[in-house]
Amino acid sequence: MSKIGIIMGSKSDLDIVSETIKQLNAFDIEYEVIVASAHRTPEVTAEWSRNARANGYAAIIAFAGAAAHLAGVVAAETNLPVIAVPISATSLLGLDALLSMVQMPGGIPVAVMAIGKAGAKNAAIFAAQIIANNDDALFAKLETYRADMRKKIASDNEEVQRAIASM
Amino acid sequence: MSKIGIIMGSKSDLDIVSETIKQLNAFDIEYEVIVASAHRTPEVTAEWSRNARANGYAAIIAFAGAAAHLAGVVAAETNLPVIAVPISATSLLGLDALLSMVQMPGGIPVAVMAIGKAGAKNAAIFAAQIIANNDDALFAKLETYRADMRKKIASDNEEVQRAIASM
Amino acid sequence: MSKIGIIMGSKSDLDIVSETIKQLNAFDIEYEVIVASAHRTPEVTAEWSRNARANGYAAIIAFAGAAAHLAGVVAAETNLPVIAVPISATSLLGLDALLSMVQMPGGIPVAVMAIGKAGAKNAAIFAAQIIANNDDALFAKLETYRADMRKKIASDNEEVQRAIASM
Amino acid sequence: MSKIGIIMGSKSDLDIVSETIKQLNAFDIEYEVIVASAHRTPEVTAEWSRNARANGYAAIIAFAGAAAHLAGVVAAETNLPVIAVPISATSLLGLDALLSMVQMPGGIPVAVMAIGKAGAKNAAIFAAQIIANNDDALFAKLETYRADMRKKIASDNEEVQRAIASM
Amino acid sequence: MSKIGIIMGSKSDLDIVSETIKQLNAFDIEYEVIVASAHRTPEVTAEWSRNARANGYAAIIAFAGAAAHLAGVVAAETNLPVIAVPISATSLLGLDALLSMVQMPGGIPVAVMAIGKAGAKNAAIFAAQIIANNDDALFAKLETYRADMRKKIASDNEEVQRAIASM
Amino acid sequence: MSKIGIIMGSKSDLDIVSETIKQLNAFDIEYEVIVASAHRTPEVTAEWSRNARANGYAAIIAFAGAAAHLAGVVAAETNLPVIAVPISATSLLGLDALLSMVQMPGGIPVAVMAIGKAGAKNAAIFAAQIIANNDDALFAKLETYRADMRKKIASDNEEVQRAIASM
Amino acid sequence: MSKIGIIMGSKSDLDIVSETIKQLNAFDIEYEVIVASAHRTPEVTAEWSRNARANGYAAIIAFAGAAAHLAGVVAAETNLPVIAVPISATSLLGLDALLSMVQMPGGIPVAVMAIGKAGAKNAAIFAAQIIANNDDALFAKLETYRADMRKKIASDNEEVQRAIASM
Amino acid sequence: MSKIGIIMGSKSDLDIVSETIKQLNAFDIEYEVIVASAHRTPEVTAEWSRNARANGYAAIIAFAGAAAHLAGVVAAETNLPVIAVPISATSLLGLDALLSMVQMPGGIPVAVMAIGKAGAKNAAIFAAQIIANNDDALFAKLETYRADMRKKIASDNEEVQRAIASM
Repeated sequence: MSKIGIIMGSKSDLDIVSETIKQLNAFDIEYEVIVASAHRTPEVTAEWSRNARANGYAAIIAFAGAAAHLAGVVAAETNLPVIAVPISATSLLGLDALLSMVQMPGGIPVAVMAIGKAGAKNAAIFAAQIIANNDDALFAKLETYRADMRKKIASDNEEVQRAIASM
Repeated sequence: MSKIGIIMGSKSDLDIVSETIKQLNAFDIEYEVIVASAHRTPEVTAEWSRNARANGYAAIIAFAGAAAHLAGVVAAETNLPVIAVPISATSLLGLDALLSMVQMPGGIPVAVMAIGKAGAKNAAIFAAQIIANNDDALFAKLETYRADMRKKIASDNEEVQRAIASM
Repeated sequence: MSKIGIIMGSKSDLDIVSETIKQLNAFDIEYEVIVASAHRTPEVTAEWSRNARANGYAAIIAFAGAAAHLAGVVAAETNLPVIAVPISATSLLGLDALLSMVQMPGGIPVAVMAIGKAGAKNAAIFAAQIIANNDDALFAKLETYRADMRKKIASDNEEVQRAIASM
Repeated sequence: MSKIGIIMGSKSDLDIVSETIKQLNAFDIEYEVIVASAHRTPEVTAEWSRNARANGYAAIIAFAGAAAHLAGVVAAETNLPVIAVPISATSLLGLDALLSMVQMPGGIPVAVMAIGKAGAKNAAIFAAQIIANNDDALFAKLETYRADMRKKIASDNEEVQRAIASM
Repeated sequence: MSKIGIIMGSKSDLDIVSETIKQLNAFDIEYEVIVASAHRTPEVTAEWSRNARANGYAAIIAFAGAAAHLAGVVAAETNLPVIAVPISATSLLGLDALLSMVQMPGGIPVAVMAIGKAGAKNAAIFAAQIIANNDDALFAKLETYRADMRKKIASDNEEVQRAIASM
Repeated sequence: MSKIGIIMGSKSDLDIVSETIKQLNAFDIEYEVIVASAHRTPEVTAEWSRNARANGYAAIIAFAGAAAHLAGVVAAETNLPVIAVPISATSLLGLDALLSMVQMPGGIPVAVMAIGKAGAKNAAIFAAQIIANNDDALFAKLETYRADMRKKIASDNEEVQRAIASM
Repeated sequence: MSKIGIIMGSKSDLDIVSETIKQLNAFDIEYEVIVASAHRTPEVTAEWSRNARANGYAAIIAFAGAAAHLAGVVAAETNLPVIAVPISATSLLGLDALLSMVQMPGGIPVAVMAIGKAGAKNAAIFAAQIIANNDDALFAKLETYRADMRKKIASDNEEVQRAIASM
Repeated sequence: MSKIGIIMGSKSDLDIVSETIKQLNAFDIEYEVIVASAHRTPEVTAEWSRNARANGYAAIIAFAGAAAHLAGVVAAETNLPVIAVPISATSLLGLDALLSMVQMPGGIPVAVMAIGKAGAKNAAIFAAQIIANNDDALFAKLETYRADMRKKIASDNEEVQRAIASM
């Protein structure tokens, strides 16, 4: 099982979701995406969630804003790990989506990432970490990714030194 | 259709729910109660919600705390009016439940009352106002209830005058 | 009784209110609108509220921002169901309006929708749900509206699949 | 005009209101108290407010918790200065009452004090400062009150020095 | 004593302060303005505050953002009524300024208006209400101002009716 | 790899951590616990984290309150999945710990559960879900656990019916 | 200069302040304490602050709750480092004190610690770190203090292992 | 020891950091800057921090946004005074960074400045105040800086007087 199931509550979330997709692509991880709503298409959402393991998903990433019930509703239908990305889609800065996702009652876990694009990228990495438990090649890619981040910080450091020198 | 369907996410909410029940009893409004969870018993919740109109409910009152998805999940399955009472069940004072209930996306409304006992009482009164649209006797009871509140404030006023006089 | 009374605290709320009007129009529900303020025209507001049932309103939708007292002030004068839409009209993102509307004390209910346009649309749907208790044709329209939302999500899903395929 | 009108939304606020009364008594300022609710007795509240100047009040102090509309509703009916004390009466720590009082829209001012007992005491002092504009004897009392506070801090300082010395 | 003393913590607040000035001008109330800071010019602020009554001020209006200590620092030096207007000057939306102003400890009151322009306008009206306690002509102006607001709402109502009719 | 590494920032967190332990015990999942602090024993924390995969951990659960850096600091040293449980350990209700954990920047994911005991229980279930990706027997236990929850809700429902009948 | 000046706004803060004192005693750092208020004794506060350097203080620690202006008012009068400890003294959990202290405008810094006892202890350690810049013996004590914390965590770890073993 | 070590978690913080640099330059204080991340380059960060005293730093200023662990992670490795500047880098306005920095547990202090540019400027001034404990020339510069601020306010006052006169 090494595919990721991605579920997004609204077409308008694609700008955020694409951060996840880019990162999964970078790790060569397969994924399938569905637009489905906890409130507008509850049966589609429930059925997709119930079939998630049979479909070969290793984990699910759910994106939603506002009263973000989608991750919880998915988690209610599957024992796969459900990762949630809160989206800032109202005047309340994403705090509504964050609390709607993170404060799950005991028994049905949802694993919450940061609000917005940082969380979307991290959802992909976290899903990769789950798969990498049994995939040493993927684990090696994750280690390489970290090494690349370290190099990026080092080159950022040099760039900042030049910027400051010229201040 | 003049019965009220009451759904509560956890047995521990009964202390709050009983405020609704007392008020419905005071108006001689019939109700049925179910303990069902959006996350732990999603099928029971969905089926109960889909049958709500056939069961003769005029409206539904949903109680939940934490990431309070219950009202939204019910509303996703019925076109009956869904009234929600957020419960303070975590360290976050009920703010999590309030935002999880009130920030519903366009298309699936949930009508939210105050957090806790005040909201539970008001949910019953609001349900009565919905039924009273076509029930003049119940409307008269609502008017009497208001008159009683006015009398109570007047007697509270006298009590406070005496308390202040003796300060 | 199948008309909706709409009360808005300020002319500047029209952008939000028009979401409600469009949705009521889509359901062929009659409505009347008044601009009246809890603070600047309290007598107009009170009188309009007291006459709401006699005017044939089934429910009232109140819009206000900031210290949003309008819904509560209307509810104080009528036993019709009062639906409230908080508006983000200050630096505080609409949180002030939300709390001013939702935390009504026991005895006088106000049913609160989401902040802004989502709430405005949902207020119309919720009002329709109230009327539909005794109007099977309107209930059928609400069911059709849901079916249309499901179709919209399905077509959004196809659009997203194409977008991702071309990423 | 040197009397203060005090209006409280609920009998249960008396514990807070008594802080105001004690302070007004200390300044020998006359006051009258009424229990009246913006929502449960709107007519009583409105009429009391409209008569406030004729009754010889120099200012009004309004106490309320939750969706605290009382001060705004009073201010809507009078051009007397209205001072508001938010009360922590729900799970939301008084933040609901504070925002409901302080975020008044342009045109109808309400002057807000701190939440709870500190605000109740300060409401009395602020009312005294208003009256003292034309009452030099009262102004002198306010100056004496300040001098007493300074002495109290000085004696508190000595007490703390002793406590620390014995640590 | 019928002049108003206006103190602003920063030149950049002038955009907000000018709302107060326009409203005071509309009531023909005299005022004097000073730019002085609680932190950068504490002596100037303290001396101006101590002289406020001798300068013939009936009340003081203080404007500040961020950790808005100015109103409290002024109030510490005078028994004149001090009115505070919180300004949204940081990323925290003015909540920092609001809490810094409104949560004054018992003994030294500060009367807080809404954040920003609404509060600035209301500070002028509230100051006028204080002066009007002993100035019937000014009280009449305040009553006229209210009547004008009522007319404005009525004409806004007509404008909205036309806008809706053409929707 | 099927052991869970548990790291807690303070001995006083044990009351919360024991919820995780009980749930892991119920699933017969092995775990090892360490008390180590991001701030007081950074080297111990870093070394334990770097060795986590070599120690055979499938995932890590980190508990911390206040400025809860522990989960992020662990995640900086390992590509194992890091699950975080925020603890309410200060006056700020756990909101400080929640935001310190959930708002991780892009690149280093931390998967956050609810504040306190609900989150502690869910951390164990979520860890089990990760392991169960490759452990059908454990997956079956998770399914049984859900079935037991459903039965518990059903019996709670009966208990509530009796309680209401006797009201 | 190696003494610390401690200023507290209210006698009731002593419970918190004593955490600072215990820690300063542990480092053998001299200190002087004064109870003085930004609002009730502004002259005492200002004069004490202006004399702080002449009195040989290396830094000042200021404690206050509510609208906590004390640290800012002290910082306005001295160029010594001012360390602030917010105290939870109202219904708002210390958030009011935190924002009143931390959001200082550019030009007059205040260095803020955590709310309450943790902040009080850290204020002492931070003051010690300032003095230790020129006091190697004190720096050695700080290093020893850290080593002791590490040992304490190690023994806490053993205690927790035993507690878990017996679960 | 009179150099300042500046550590920033991300290249994108340079706009804020440059406020610190400009102010340090104005005081002729030496500094060294490093881009290093608590999460992406933990070893670099730890080693830089451990060497900070040996490098001759008198204090460290750390900049970070989101779950801002950088200052705490640095403070865990050194007994130098660590000053933190929270940056608003997510949808949550910098509140996440503020709480992540300020709520440090007892034992490891971090001294927090205001969010953003005001805090960045003040971090430089505060660092100067620390060094000035043993540098009378620098203390004189700080006093001159204050005098210049006072002059600036005085000239701002004149500018505002002219602006108001022409209103």
